[in-house]
Amino acid sequence: MPLPSSPPGLQLADRMVGVVPNAIGELLKHGADPSVISFAGGYPDASLFPVDGIRAVMAELLDGQHNVALQYTVSDGLPVLREQVAKFMRADGLDIGADDVLILQGGQQGLDLTGKLVLNPGDTVVTENPTFLGALIAFAPNQPTYAPVRMDEGGMVISDLERVLAASPRARLLYTVPEFQNPTGVTLSVERRQAVIDLADRYDLVVIEDTPYRHLRYDGASVPTLKSLDTQGRVVHLGSFSKILAPGMRLGWAIAAPDLLAKLGLLKLAADTQCSTLNMAAAAAFMERYDIHAHIDHMRGAYRRKRDLMLESLEEHMPPSVSWTHPVGGLFTWLTFPEGFDATAFMRDQALPIAKVAYVPGATFFPNEQEPNHARVNFSGATDEGIVLGVKRLGELLRTILP
Amino acid sequence: MPLPSSPPGLQLADRMVGVVPNAIGELLKHGADPSVISFAGGYPDASLFPVDGIRAVMAELLDGQHNVALQYTVSDGLPVLREQVAKFMRADGLDIGADDVLILQGGQQGLDLTGKLVLNPGDTVVTENPTFLGALIAFAPNQPTYAPVRMDEGGMVISDLERVLAASPRARLLYTVPEFQNPTGVTLSVERRQAVIDLADRYDLVVIEDTPYRHLRYDGASVPTLKSLDTQGRVVHLGSFSKILAPGMRLGWAIAAPDLLAKLGLLKLAADTQCSTLNMAAAAAFMERYDIHAHIDHMRGAYRRKRDLMLESLEEHMPPSVSWTHPVGGLFTWLTFPEGFDATAFMRDQALPIAKVAYVPGATFFPNEQEPNHARVNFSGATDEGIVLGVKRLGELLRTILP
Repeated sequence: MPLPSSPPGLQLADRMVGVVPNAIGELLKHGADPSVISFAGGYPDASLFPVDGIRAVMAELLDGQHNVALQYTVSDGLPVLREQVAKFMRADGLDIGADDVLILQGGQQGLDLTGKLVLNPGDTVVTENPTFLGALIAFAPNQPTYAPVRMDEGGMVISDLERVLAASPRARLLYTVPEFQNPTGVTLSVERRQAVIDLADRYDLVVIEDTPYRHLRYDGASVPTLKSLDTQGRVVHLGSFSKILAPGMRLGWAIAAPDLLAKLGLLKLAADTQCSTLNMAAAAAFMERYDIHAHIDHMRGAYRRKRDLMLESLEEHMPPSVSWTHPVGGLFTWLTFPEGFDATAFMRDQALPIAKVAYVPGATFFPNEQEPNHARVNFSGATDEGIVLGVKRLGELLRTILP
Repeated sequence: MPLPSSPPGLQLADRMVGVVPNAIGELLKHGADPSVISFAGGYPDASLFPVDGIRAVMAELLDGQHNVALQYTVSDGLPVLREQVAKFMRADGLDIGADDVLILQGGQQGLDLTGKLVLNPGDTVVTENPTFLGALIAFAPNQPTYAPVRMDEGGMVISDLERVLAASPRARLLYTVPEFQNPTGVTLSVERRQAVIDLADRYDLVVIEDTPYRHLRYDGASVPTLKSLDTQGRVVHLGSFSKILAPGMRLGWAIAAPDLLAKLGLLKLAADTQCSTLNMAAAAAFMERYDIHAHIDHMRGAYRRKRDLMLESLEEHMPPSVSWTHPVGGLFTWLTFPEGFDATAFMRDQALPIAKVAYVPGATFFPNEQEPNHARVNFSGATDEGIVLGVKRLGELLRTILP
């Protein structure tokens, strides 16, 4: 017997008006059909997880130190893991110590907590256009409005950011995925990073720098983090273990000004007490025992090959009226179809049932005005054969209806 | 070089006014001093964790199925774990299936999400007086007011609950820890449970039934959950693996009406995407492979002995003017000192430096008017010798100043 539904008219919080199901959940279910080649997920390649190392450190932790690894610990995260993250980020140009790091339940928790920290109902979040759907979901309970900024192959267009900020008196938060953005794959150029910081200073914004893909760079040299350019202490830098270790560990981190980090720590304590002690201990032990940079290099090689395969396949099979981004890292490319093309309807009516291929229709990534003629295409989740075959099937189908 | 603080005058969300550090964090730091016998924590006894079983299932999960156990999964929780929790709670009298269960990052996350679900700023939360500090911390970002209800050895006094509800037009949420409450150790009597549900129906409240200690009963027969009495679908039942398996796994669950559970699931997705796949898989495998009820029985025997040792030691060493509760389960007893006694000052000035004993001063558990003359005393964290010696030291010190 199913449990009864709640009473009719039960009064819930006003914020729940904006907390509604979205399309990506349904789409990911289609991706789970084994006959479908899915470019819809954002999953890293599970065959690249360092399972031997994780198994070894888990076995050790559950042998001698189980009273520690299975017990409660401090809310801000295991000190050994905070130190390992600090060391990892010092190698990436941030002059920080363990006290500057808050361990989180994945980068997503940093979006939830920073939204809570900054946003009153009706405040404006400035985002890239399109932007990461998970951030829109995280901010929704704070009932914000959005001011999206136009992007090109160098990330946010600074003149458009200036226009948006001048027109947004309640702008409090600037959200960016500066490297290999989800969904577009584009990277904020070095020149524009300083301009973004200058504008954040001028308009007194908090900036969320969300970097889940930062360490998966396939071409060219690394660019400085926004946090490294932040002299005023207004950038909350979010990092994640999901793409450098394994998403099933659910670990990420925030690096922020001491006063903001302390407040984020209070919100973390309120939200879920702490992350899994065992997983934190395992991640720290893995980083102590193994060379995380060598592991990342290994992954980069594998993902670079998949990225190349994806771009070559698109080149070979897409009709001339379709274009796409050329990401130098991360997990996604972004397809643009001709104006008037409805990527959602095409997926539902043709790509899924006929070609047996899934992507994420781009409309869902636009905070305000949804553009229907895009698709986010992931190249990390499918096999090599799947990439070639899926793009071929998709291209052949598109060629029947597009120039 | 430390990171710079955020700019002076940086505008944060209004809700942050109520998000402030509290005493328990500092006190837990004292508990970490190895020369102090601590009754301050709420930690289960780490020597009772089923580490062999957890190690065995972890080794299996990280061998054959690592691509699943380390990968992302669905936000509502691994289906196998939802089914195991449903089975566990069917044995506890709830007629539910896996779809009625949402996996959470410990019970604490259920408090955060349910607070978000229900509370607008200024709404009233009805609580036991005193109540669980973690709930006050979780609800704080929603800027509620509190209406505390007087307790006796049978839990909330129903006439006082009636009085409070009649005087609280904005009461939206009733929060209770019905078994072996934190901090008092008392249990809501069978007779009063139906009265609580009837009043929730009459005043159209959402009820949070928080049950972290429910399965650690040492005397007498189990009492029905509030959820089992809930014909209208207004009780959100929260459970936790922290005391039946291990807190370092950070797993708990919510059971609620389908429409409320779906909304809690959306908030879970927004908050942190999902719990650790690996830990969820390990908990499910542990429950499939081992007899969780036998494990709980084993723990109950050990904790019963500690509870008895604590109550006997208090009887032997406390001065006659001190009284305490006689919990039939859980991890805590609650000491009441004579009126005018300041348990916080006594701990800081005498118990810690002289007796080298820590407890949690009771004042922190009162939502509104803090009563200074109580202490929460935990009996699960210390060794048997620690319990006897700590209570002896504390009693001898108290006898020098109290009748």
